[in-house]
This record gives sequence, C-alpha cells and structure tokens, in this order.
Amino acid sequence: MTRSTQLTPDPHLDLVLERVVDVPPELVWAAWTEPEHLKQWFTPLPWQTVDCEIDLRPGGIFRTVMRSPEGRDFPNVGCYLEVVPNRRLVWTGALLPGFRPPAHDPNVPFRFTAVISLEPAGTGTKYTATVLHTDEEGRKKHEAMGFHSGWGKASDQLVVLMTKVASGSHVS
Amino acid sequence: MTRSTQLTPDPHLDLVLERVVDVPPELVWAAWTEPEHLKQWFTPLPWQTVDCEIDLRPGGIFRTVMRSPEGRDFPNVGCYLEVVPNRRLVWTGALLPGFRPPAHDPNVPFRFTAVISLEPAGTGTKYTATVLHTDEEGRKKHEAMGFHSGWGKASDQLVVLMTKVASGSHVS
Repeated sequence: MTRSTQLTPDPHLDLVLERVVDVPPELVWAAWTEPEHLKQWFTPLPWQTVDCEIDLRPGGIFRTVMRSPEGRDFPNVGCYLEVVPNRRLVWTGALLPGFRPPAHDPNVPFRFTAVISLEPAGTGTKYTATVLHTDEEGRKKHEAMGFHSGWGKASDQLVVLMTKVASGSHVS
Repeated sequence: MTRSTQLTPDPHLDLVLERVVDVPPELVWAAWTEPEHLKQWFTPLPWQTVDCEIDLRPGGIFRTVMRSPEGRDFPNVGCYLEVVPNRRLVWTGALLPGFRPPAHDPNVPFRFTAVISLEPAGTGTKYTATVLHTDEEGRKKHEAMGFHSGWGKASDQLVVLMTKVASGSHVS
C-alpha cells in the first residue's frame, strides 16, 4: 500500500549521483539521519554545517544551517516526505515542516526534492541521490552551482566518516 | 519510525471541518481513494467531478477534473504525501506527482495541503479534514470561496453515498 513510486529521472529536470560505497546501508542511513553525523559530512569543506534538526517522519522538520568559508550562515528548512529506514529518504524544501506550502520567494532560484536510495551491494551500498527540480532552468542553475562536485565531495566525506565510525576509530 | 507528525492547526492559516459521521472508517476511506466513489461526492452539486486518477502511495498522482454548472472544466493535479489506510491521507497541490515542485504560477491564488484524519467513533467515524495554507491571505481566500459550505456539502454527499453503499442499495 505504501510502496514507493517508481522513480524515473528526467534528464532535462533531474540530477543523479550514483555510486557504490563501501559502508553498509545502515551506516549511510545513520549518516543522513543523525544530526551529529550529518553535520560532519553534509557540506563540502571548507563549507560547514553548523546546525541540524531532524524529525524523522513524513512532514517532520529537516533543518540545516550551512556556513560559508567567510562565516556567512545559510539556513535551510524543509520536511521529510518518505522515511523507509535504511532504504529510502525523501525530503523537500518546497514544503515547510508539517507539509505546509511555503510562500513563493522571488529570491529563491529553485526548489528541489531529493530522493536518497540505498541498496545493499556486497558489504557496501549502492547509493543514489536523485534531485528533482521544478524546471530545466532550476536544474541548470543547480548544476552550474556545482551539484556534481559538491554532492560528490559530500558523499566522499560521508564514506570517510562512516568508515571511521565502523572501525571504532572515530572520535566525535 | 513513520508515525505521523502531530497536527496542530494554526487558526490564522488553517481550516478545519470536524464531524462524526455514521459510516465506518473503511467506507470513508474507500470514498476518498476509489475514483468511482470519489467522482460521486467530491464536488458540491451542481459542480461535478468528471475525472479522477489515483495512485495511492506517497508521491502518487491525485488528479481530478471539476466541471462547473456552466460546463467549464477545472483540472487539479497533485500527489499524496501520507497514506495510512483507514486512518490518514495527506496530499498536496504544492507538489506534482513524484513530489516534483511545481512552477510558481501568479494565477494560482493559493496552494494547500490537505490532511484527512479518520477515527472510529462507535459504528461511525470521527472525520477531520484539515487544510493547510501558505499564509493567512491564502486561508482567507479559500474561506471566502466557501470552504466550509463546500467541504461540508461534499462531506454530506460522501456520507449519503457510502451509507447507500453499506446498505447494498447503491447502483453505481
């Protein structure tokens, strides 16, 4: 009944990062859903994630504050849409917590919904991040902002962090 | 894990219709989720719902076409956000099917997310429809359009229809 919709990315609108990483899905999930983990990998350095609030359920808040290398803070707030532990996490900035539609803001260049899909792959995870945009203009803006390098770098950080966590050598 | 968020309506932003109706939750659910039922009660007469498409899962399409008494058709498309059988159904027009954010349209006066909550009440259902808006202006527009009478009348129709269905006297 609550099976997920089939996700067929539209290359004109969507961006896809797909890779197999060598940490199990449970740890990738923890990295995405526990603020203390997330703050450590979510933004490509030298950007930092200095705050994070997670209420892990449909409509629950997902809030982060990103800090630029110059010290400027950029808050983001949205909500989760789907929470399938260790398998699928969907959130959007196009709806506020509680699913409330936000006011249109001409200063927001684009809004997106992100779908994180995890599949076991040997001892690791097939990890796919798909980001849906309103229109091709939004996708192009996001891509020009460095989606592939940014999300790729963040994913590298995720793997490094969780590998340390798995080995017991991580000190938070 | 996927428990719903607590819904606390904001009177400045939200509209609430709450009543106890004398059909069980399972039938109210069927009325909301089966197109052949929905088309028969969803719009207050003399408006009609002439088409309906339902893919009952998070991100799945919820599309209706309403026809005015003058014969003009008004299509609506959105997606489901939460599907808890017989208990909770959440959809929005602020996201397209697959959760894709829609383009801002200056001709759309407001967007909303609707939350339908059902609770057993004796042999019937405590039925609550809560409609979330972006801002007070949106809520006021919706209210001025006749939310209470329109949704109330539609709910009456729902009850009439499903009472007939329950008694076996309904011919579709």
